[in-house]
Amino acid sequence: RRPAMKAAVLTAAGIDHLAIVDLAVPEPGPGQVLVRMTAASLNYRDVLTVEGGYGSRQKAADLIILSDGAGEVAGVGEAVQRFRPGDRVVANFFQDWIDGRPNAAQLASALGGSVDGVLAEYRLFPEHGLVATPEHLSDVEAAALPCAGLTAWSAMVGQGKVAPGELVLTLGTGGVSLFALMFAKLAGAAVIVTSSSAEKLERALDLGADHAINYREVADWGRRARAIAGGLGVDHVVELGGAGTLDQSLKAVRVGGTISLIGVLAGTGPDIRLPLIVMQNIRLQGVTVGSRAEFEAMLRAMALHRLRPPIDRVFPMAEIRDALAHLAAGRHFGKVCIEI
Amino acid sequence: RRPAMKAAVLTAAGIDHLAIVDLAVPEPGPGQVLVRMTAASLNYRDVLTVEGGYGSRQKAADLIILSDGAGEVAGVGEAVQRFRPGDRVVANFFQDWIDGRPNAAQLASALGGSVDGVLAEYRLFPEHGLVATPEHLSDVEAAALPCAGLTAWSAMVGQGKVAPGELVLTLGTGGVSLFALMFAKLAGAAVIVTSSSAEKLERALDLGADHAINYREVADWGRRARAIAGGLGVDHVVELGGAGTLDQSLKAVRVGGTISLIGVLAGTGPDIRLPLIVMQNIRLQGVTVGSRAEFEAMLRAMALHRLRPPIDRVFPMAEIRDALAHLAAGRHFGKVCIEI
Amino acid sequence: RRPAMKAAVLTAAGIDHLAIVDLAVPEPGPGQVLVRMTAASLNYRDVLTVEGGYGSRQKAADLIILSDGAGEVAGVGEAVQRFRPGDRVVANFFQDWIDGRPNAAQLASALGGSVDGVLAEYRLFPEHGLVATPEHLSDVEAAALPCAGLTAWSAMVGQGKVAPGELVLTLGTGGVSLFALMFAKLAGAAVIVTSSSAEKLERALDLGADHAINYREVADWGRRARAIAGGLGVDHVVELGGAGTLDQSLKAVRVGGTISLIGVLAGTGPDIRLPLIVMQNIRLQGVTVGSRAEFEAMLRAMALHRLRPPIDRVFPMAEIRDALAHLAAGRHFGKVCIEI
Amino acid sequence: RRPAMKAAVLTAAGIDHLAIVDLAVPEPGPGQVLVRMTAASLNYRDVLTVEGGYGSRQKAADLIILSDGAGEVAGVGEAVQRFRPGDRVVANFFQDWIDGRPNAAQLASALGGSVDGVLAEYRLFPEHGLVATPEHLSDVEAAALPCAGLTAWSAMVGQGKVAPGELVLTLGTGGVSLFALMFAKLAGAAVIVTSSSAEKLERALDLGADHAINYREVADWGRRARAIAGGLGVDHVVELGGAGTLDQSLKAVRVGGTISLIGVLAGTGPDIRLPLIVMQNIRLQGVTVGSRAEFEAMLRAMALHRLRPPIDRVFPMAEIRDALAHLAAGRHFGKVCIEI
Repeated sequence: RRPAMKAAVLTAAGIDHLAIVDLAVPEPGPGQVLVRMTAASLNYRDVLTVEGGYGSRQKAADLIILSDGAGEVAGVGEAVQRFRPGDRVVANFFQDWIDGRPNAAQLASALGGSVDGVLAEYRLFPEHGLVATPEHLSDVEAAALPCAGLTAWSAMVGQGKVAPGELVLTLGTGGVSLFALMFAKLAGAAVIVTSSSAEKLERALDLGADHAINYREVADWGRRARAIAGGLGVDHVVELGGAGTLDQSLKAVRVGGTISLIGVLAGTGPDIRLPLIVMQNIRLQGVTVGSRAEFEAMLRAMALHRLRPPIDRVFPMAEIRDALAHLAAGRHFGKVCIEI
Repeated sequence: RRPAMKAAVLTAAGIDHLAIVDLAVPEPGPGQVLVRMTAASLNYRDVLTVEGGYGSRQKAADLIILSDGAGEVAGVGEAVQRFRPGDRVVANFFQDWIDGRPNAAQLASALGGSVDGVLAEYRLFPEHGLVATPEHLSDVEAAALPCAGLTAWSAMVGQGKVAPGELVLTLGTGGVSLFALMFAKLAGAAVIVTSSSAEKLERALDLGADHAINYREVADWGRRARAIAGGLGVDHVVELGGAGTLDQSLKAVRVGGTISLIGVLAGTGPDIRLPLIVMQNIRLQGVTVGSRAEFEAMLRAMALHRLRPPIDRVFPMAEIRDALAHLAAGRHFGKVCIEI
Repeated sequence: RRPAMKAAVLTAAGIDHLAIVDLAVPEPGPGQVLVRMTAASLNYRDVLTVEGGYGSRQKAADLIILSDGAGEVAGVGEAVQRFRPGDRVVANFFQDWIDGRPNAAQLASALGGSVDGVLAEYRLFPEHGLVATPEHLSDVEAAALPCAGLTAWSAMVGQGKVAPGELVLTLGTGGVSLFALMFAKLAGAAVIVTSSSAEKLERALDLGADHAINYREVADWGRRARAIAGGLGVDHVVELGGAGTLDQSLKAVRVGGTISLIGVLAGTGPDIRLPLIVMQNIRLQGVTVGSRAEFEAMLRAMALHRLRPPIDRVFPMAEIRDALAHLAAGRHFGKVCIEI
Repeated sequence: RRPAMKAAVLTAAGIDHLAIVDLAVPEPGPGQVLVRMTAASLNYRDVLTVEGGYGSRQKAADLIILSDGAGEVAGVGEAVQRFRPGDRVVANFFQDWIDGRPNAAQLASALGGSVDGVLAEYRLFPEHGLVATPEHLSDVEAAALPCAGLTAWSAMVGQGKVAPGELVLTLGTGGVSLFALMFAKLAGAAVIVTSSSAEKLERALDLGADHAINYREVADWGRRARAIAGGLGVDHVVELGGAGTLDQSLKAVRVGGTISLIGVLAGTGPDIRLPLIVMQNIRLQGVTVGSRAEFEAMLRAMALHRLRPPIDRVFPMAEIRDALAHLAAGRHFGKVCIEI
């Protein structure tokens, strides 16, 4: 009889259908790695997924939730070369997107969505879906990185190629936005952060933001950001609000600038001024996490600078529902994590 | 007393306020080139401009209309080095955008909009606003190129970097679309063209299009284009319809693909599915004509391949109103031109 | 007892140590594909390899020779998803370089060099090392492509990004040079070819070259190429001669231009004028074949345009020594191939 | 009679032919700006120029020396728009290279070489050849930037696009190398510096270098750099030694890495291993200063981070010969400057 493990399984849409159950510990086949998971983190996407709102890409039923997790290699199958038992590893969000530009099949390998996620005591991964955890990070810190961290890295570095001296506007103080702040600063840019909370803006300034705008106080915050940019507009917007904020972002960005469009909150836009995009030569770039190669590049940069992700709070696995509720409430600053 | 010339001047919004009047022939100051204009061409932008609908960028009153014109150097001011009397020249759309990425000041130098246009017997240009007309082109053919031709070149080559073997979808058979067809083929791509006219689709196929979709017959033409692309989606869409067609374009484009957003018809989008842009890693790139360096690169490619623009009809200058009406009616195929 | 097959094995340096021997047909393990090889082609690299002159990257002994081969899937191991028995396939030169930029480990997976090659009746490949053969190509034609074809594609398209209207100079009429001619034309460029043979230049012009220079007649052929480029220099040189020709290539290339450095003949340069590279802002780009993603892009372009590689002559497998001697003699035009 | 000014004029090759003479102060014509020069700086190029060794690009006789200078606008000619009297300005090295890729004509506008330089009390510039001096910099500091600073910026940022987490090796502690250190750090990279002087290495570490190699002690410093890079090699080499050091640089750089080739010392290489460049997919990129657009981007980054150039020593104009000798002696650390 095979040993049992705990896993957080969603059997149907709705938080009531999420339960921690016993499953058999799987065994690694050829090219597979068995990881004893020790930590995970949450993204807003997981709140939507539990509600069944993440759309057609989602695995239909009995989904092990969460995309972001780290742990230790417990066993390897035949022909595995990159890892050995005892190695600390963290999973890449899209298991099959290794390098280069993505294709549809690779984007259908998202953990905790298209395929089972990481909130379990053990999980099998294809060898190519894992990367080594940097030494300076704990497992919880590593687990805080895959989705939000790599999305921000792609927006700022991998695709965005932000250069020293440029000016970046990032919306809000959620996970992606704080990572974007961190990576933009690393690349030598100046950063404007927005929030409706004076306290969160203070904390963003502590993390290195150059300018803060309270959008509760400054309704026309796009114009304010443009003014900070000497009237010319910012070089790059990390657009996390979607249809509700895009018009202000278009006011903020310079001629020839880039808006990185991120996040499942994006919605369907009622009033997107396309002529402005045309006449000002603006690029609207959808960003959906990134490849394993970019994840490794990001971890290398974090290791060099000994950067750590901002952690808001760590819940035990048994309190996954509370953790989801905490994230949904929106009062966190930094990542909401799970110890397994 | 200085010699007089004819010029087409718009004194206020509305076709009734467009008249051909007598003005003094200007004299070239330092760095300026006087061109005897011999040909011009129309873009839909000019129809909007005459109606006063081109927005805040438009010069307030007494605007000499049309952006696209060619002619012969009649005189040069002090310190002019690149041209001599007798040289055949064609004007760049944005007079001050020479090379590299644009800034707001450069985009405020659009002929026949921000500043006076070319429908006059003589016009002064800054030396840097002109390029040499390729030998194999007539003046009318050269005058057919600046706005629509360079926009298509930027979308396909300068910014779009379409590679051999890629698949391009271009919407309609207007000027930009036909140029996009021409340049995409030149770069080794396959091209799908859409139209509501079977006859125009025939002509597009004659010009080299690989596939034709009649969107009157195929309402879900985005899906049809995706099917032509083996179900994976096209690499590049030349989006000329704006808010009315963008949803279909999003259906047509592949994961990681690019939609070049072009044209003043773009409108304000009611139903733009931003989450699709995010999750499929799509790039929406506003394209607004291009730099002089790109114009020269385009003319070089046309000269090498002895390409000529498709010309629909040539009107005399006195019939400018008829020419505008002909363009507005939308039954043309190729550029509507003027002999001056 | 397992069935036997023929394979061309090099047991030590020197053509006398190359023999066709009997080996057991291997069986596919997990993730592996067994291919019945039907065709192969030769590159000058293979001549050097047989002489033991390909350096430290070469597998020490008992090397199955040749990098370029095609055939039909005879069996698949567990977990193979992309291929089924009966599929026609062609092997990628670097078996482990899938996409993106290469690393050292990926470059140590070169067929017929670092690892066993393709001149055998059967060969096992990792699933990720194969691509589908385009329908319009025979197996011999497909086998003509991996090394020389992809190298030329990388130089002209994947890395070189040659644009319509540009001017390319390619040296000689060997395999890479003829492929470079083909792909540069496909991308809308004009091409100058050099050779010491008037007959070969005629054939290159037949294949689409725009200009031909006989370097036996024109010693200062770099300057001649520059003159063809209007005195400004060509945009791109496909440098296949190495130390012996680089000085002329530097004379030919324009300010800011690119020289793609290719080939094992490159040698150690006695007189490379580095200050010219600096002051003229020249890029010297080493090109070493390419990734599987680029190979697929190349095959897609060839399928779209129904391009076929130029084939010089096809030898039976038993005459591999003659084939190598024919290639070494240098009188071929197009690829030297093997039927297995 | 027009007022007189001092200027340092080279009448023939050799330091004995350099003299400070009286010339008439010029007057600005259309599009020209008269600058009262207050500061200049020296580059090794100037030492070569005075010796007549800078080659065919050099103005034949009566050359006002030095490329790098700053000052204050004293008057403007007709039609000048970007500057007014009293503005602080610094000259771009290539007066006519505004943006984009360079052409031969633009590279023939190098101050203090192809055309007269800046070591004079007054100098006329075309309006397009100047940029505004950042507020936080003195004139001497601004004058320290044009040649060495922009060269390093182009190598690291404009062309090199160094990303956070990458590893850069820069050779020596001359002006370009120290600027490369500064800009690579700004872009989030780690930096290895080499020198034969323990004291200079200490100072480089003080400026932010992560690793130092004394090449007098470590003859095989290329291999040492590779070891620091975990055996994989560095991402980028700033190659300032030319033929004498390139072989070690090739040992240091990773597969697919870039070597920025800089400097007039480059020489003619006796033993450049071209096959290594080919087989390791290395890019050798000649870097020759940069465009005005890149100069402005660099100054913007320096202003944001309030960066200042390292200054070794400031000489009065009358001691220009001593300043040249001091630079030639090679014991400086940071820029050698002149107050005018």
